[in-house]
Amino acid sequence: MSDVVTPGSLGRSDSNSKKSERLQLVLQHIETEFDSAIERLQTFLKIPSISTNPEYKTEVRRCAQYITNDLQSIGLDATLHNTNGHPMVVATDDSAGPAAPRVLYYGHYDVQPVDPLDEWNTPPFDADIVEGTHGKRIVARGAADDKGQLMTFVEAIRAWKHVHGALPVRVVILLEGEEESGSESLVPFLNEHKDELQADTCIVCDTGMWNKDTPAITSRLRGLVYVEATLHGPSHDLHSGSYGGAVVNPANALTKILGELHDDDGRIQIDGFYDDVSDVSREQVAQWNALGDADALTLESSGSKATYGERGYSTLERLWSRPTCDINGLWSGYTGEGAKTVIGATASAKISCRLVAHQKPEVIKDALFAFLEERTPTGCTWDLKNFGTAPAIAVPTESPWLAVASEALSSIFPNRAVLIGTGGSIPVVGEFQEILGIDAVMIGYSLDDDLIHAPNEKFDMICFHRGILSQAAILEAYASIHV
Amino acid sequence: MSDVVTPGSLGRSDSNSKKSERLQLVLQHIETEFDSAIERLQTFLKIPSISTNPEYKTEVRRCAQYITNDLQSIGLDATLHNTNGHPMVVATDDSAGPAAPRVLYYGHYDVQPVDPLDEWNTPPFDADIVEGTHGKRIVARGAADDKGQLMTFVEAIRAWKHVHGALPVRVVILLEGEEESGSESLVPFLNEHKDELQADTCIVCDTGMWNKDTPAITSRLRGLVYVEATLHGPSHDLHSGSYGGAVVNPANALTKILGELHDDDGRIQIDGFYDDVSDVSREQVAQWNALGDADALTLESSGSKATYGERGYSTLERLWSRPTCDINGLWSGYTGEGAKTVIGATASAKISCRLVAHQKPEVIKDALFAFLEERTPTGCTWDLKNFGTAPAIAVPTESPWLAVASEALSSIFPNRAVLIGTGGSIPVVGEFQEILGIDAVMIGYSLDDDLIHAPNEKFDMICFHRGILSQAAILEAYASIHV
Repeated sequence: MSDVVTPGSLGRSDSNSKKSERLQLVLQHIETEFDSAIERLQTFLKIPSISTNPEYKTEVRRCAQYITNDLQSIGLDATLHNTNGHPMVVATDDSAGPAAPRVLYYGHYDVQPVDPLDEWNTPPFDADIVEGTHGKRIVARGAADDKGQLMTFVEAIRAWKHVHGALPVRVVILLEGEEESGSESLVPFLNEHKDELQADTCIVCDTGMWNKDTPAITSRLRGLVYVEATLHGPSHDLHSGSYGGAVVNPANALTKILGELHDDDGRIQIDGFYDDVSDVSREQVAQWNALGDADALTLESSGSKATYGERGYSTLERLWSRPTCDINGLWSGYTGEGAKTVIGATASAKISCRLVAHQKPEVIKDALFAFLEERTPTGCTWDLKNFGTAPAIAVPTESPWLAVASEALSSIFPNRAVLIGTGGSIPVVGEFQEILGIDAVMIGYSLDDDLIHAPNEKFDMICFHRGILSQAAILEAYASIHV
Repeated sequence: MSDVVTPGSLGRSDSNSKKSERLQLVLQHIETEFDSAIERLQTFLKIPSISTNPEYKTEVRRCAQYITNDLQSIGLDATLHNTNGHPMVVATDDSAGPAAPRVLYYGHYDVQPVDPLDEWNTPPFDADIVEGTHGKRIVARGAADDKGQLMTFVEAIRAWKHVHGALPVRVVILLEGEEESGSESLVPFLNEHKDELQADTCIVCDTGMWNKDTPAITSRLRGLVYVEATLHGPSHDLHSGSYGGAVVNPANALTKILGELHDDDGRIQIDGFYDDVSDVSREQVAQWNALGDADALTLESSGSKATYGERGYSTLERLWSRPTCDINGLWSGYTGEGAKTVIGATASAKISCRLVAHQKPEVIKDALFAFLEERTPTGCTWDLKNFGTAPAIAVPTESPWLAVASEALSSIFPNRAVLIGTGGSIPVVGEFQEILGIDAVMIGYSLDDDLIHAPNEKFDMICFHRGILSQAAILEAYASIHV
């Protein structure tokens, strides 16, 4: 991989020459040792740390212990902390001295389940290296989400420690083991370890790039409301011959109600849904739309034949700055093979709304429930469950940490770093804001085609390589900020 | 059970006194031997003749053999016929002589599966006798559908043969073993055995009464179109954060489309759907509405809190003379516990239409497919499957067979027989019309609360008792018709 980026390509760095020199030694070391970094990532990926499945509890713990040991071997003060769920790993390094800025790094070492297993071309925990569109890639559950990504800053720190015996900034690393299973221990842990985790800035490494040549900092995350609604009609399943046309069919009624969620322009019809939504600036929209052909990227990675959504907004505007209402699950009656002439006693849907800045999750959840209740068919009742809410997040884009990180990223990649949004939610960013008072800088290295949460998840070696180099550059760049 | 109906209550019979006398001897014998009839029904019910499940193939055959032997023991010429599926049983008796009318009897000895087994209060094949609302009842899968019902004419024939050594009419019995599993062998069998099955009239014994005191002849059956529709969007399931608002969510689109199937008055919006539907006569509607409080019966037996359907029609009109469009199954995305932020690659529905006289099943099926296709979201495709169609049936209500059977029924029950419809479909009635050229007289003895196809299916002993007596009376009455 040594032909990807050579230190000579770092001419655009804004670092002063003295810092460039010590950084260049680190970058050279990363080049030389990249094969070892890949081997370490493979070892890490071979531990099946699936956090949702209790059967893997021991493996999740083994994974936490492995990364704790690895951080200790680098020279960090690393500790595995027990929680009511899976362990938290915290590692600190104060070799930069008390005057240096303190940077909090976040990643998660747990992974999603692997089903459907038979769709994987190589076993999900073999971590095989195969050839792909962008050269070599490592295929494994967790390759991009998030083991491969968190290893970018771990390897950058390893290289700095190896070459210079010290880091340019103070560092505290928090690695979570429950990100894929609800993060139940996160808030209590942040509250209990507030002082230890205090930092001047924070890098959350769990997002994507615009493309392999264009690094990105994510500044907008959508929020979430997730509910389950079950409409109850008759007390038991009915024969559709004996009762069809005589009583309410909950499946008929549910589709009619859910069919009214959007108008023909894709606008959500829930009362007050858009009250707190404001359009983003024309400059922001222009910047997003200049990033490239987002429609083509979306169609390719989703396997869709057309983009679709709220009329009047570009695909990136819809994804990053417009709220949604999506049915995530739907079921009623007979769903097996062949025909069964049944009227199901109930019909159910899982429904979620992605929220944007200023929308209040509780208000939207109540408005969604009211939308359903106002449409209750005579004689029917609802069972409405709330599976949790999270507000949208916008981090300040004027912060010096973001500007400096952007320059450091730009110094490593062929293209300059861009500011993007993401349609998903990363609750930890909100918890850091609220509990620790720190705005995160979201820098990640995954690509749209990484098949996160799906079979054949991969992480391209070019992304891993550039990720480590750029994290090393950010460490250097952050040292220049006076706190 | 001998207090239910005594021969003295037969005063309303139109049979002449000579026939009444020989019939009265038969009815008295049925009274005396009713306990033995119950025991025979229990033995029959204990054979788990579940025709859909290949594991029960031997039991289905054992059941066919049991009833063949039983019919032979009465003195009928009974044969078990092998088919590509389960056996057909045919039994004939010509003791009435060549001038007597020939009557074809139809019933089925196979039964539905028993799931969910844990909801049965007594084992489904124990055939326990328990106390219920209308006195003693027998609880078993198949008690009312259709073993208990077909045993009404078998027991009536047994009694006639025992008392008089001969029947008043010629008889051919056809018992099917695939009624609950698609009747695949029926049409080929009818074609092959056309001559043997030829008759002047036919009694199909697989329907219901108005209530326990009011027997009924069913003259209208709705037809059926049953399809499955799957809407395909993206090539794989998507993360609703990364793609929500950017591409079509098939579950959102499917609910919108299916939500348009009915207008706010419950009228079906498929183009041309009502073209061949004609209103029934005001006299017919008045007769149905005079039967009693159909709404109360429907609410009680369905466990619904309100009736609902096409505006402007009573519940019985809707059930017996109006077509429907019902969603029988619905599924998309994640349907397990808790929350998963997924956009399903597909969304599916099983949809059926109950049809009424003159609607053409193929035309309706095509119109339903066209309804869906016209609404195909940009970039999506449909996978549309047809699971079979059956036309609605109306049997002539002016036939002497129907009039005479009605009088015979009225002579046994407290109330006079009424003419009803049924919302369901009984394909064999159409096959008899088409292949054998015979209009069926549908006489059955089940009640709305018999839990047919559900756990704790039962047959009230009062219905079984009156069923046998009335079948004996019909045999006598049919002898009076000159063919």
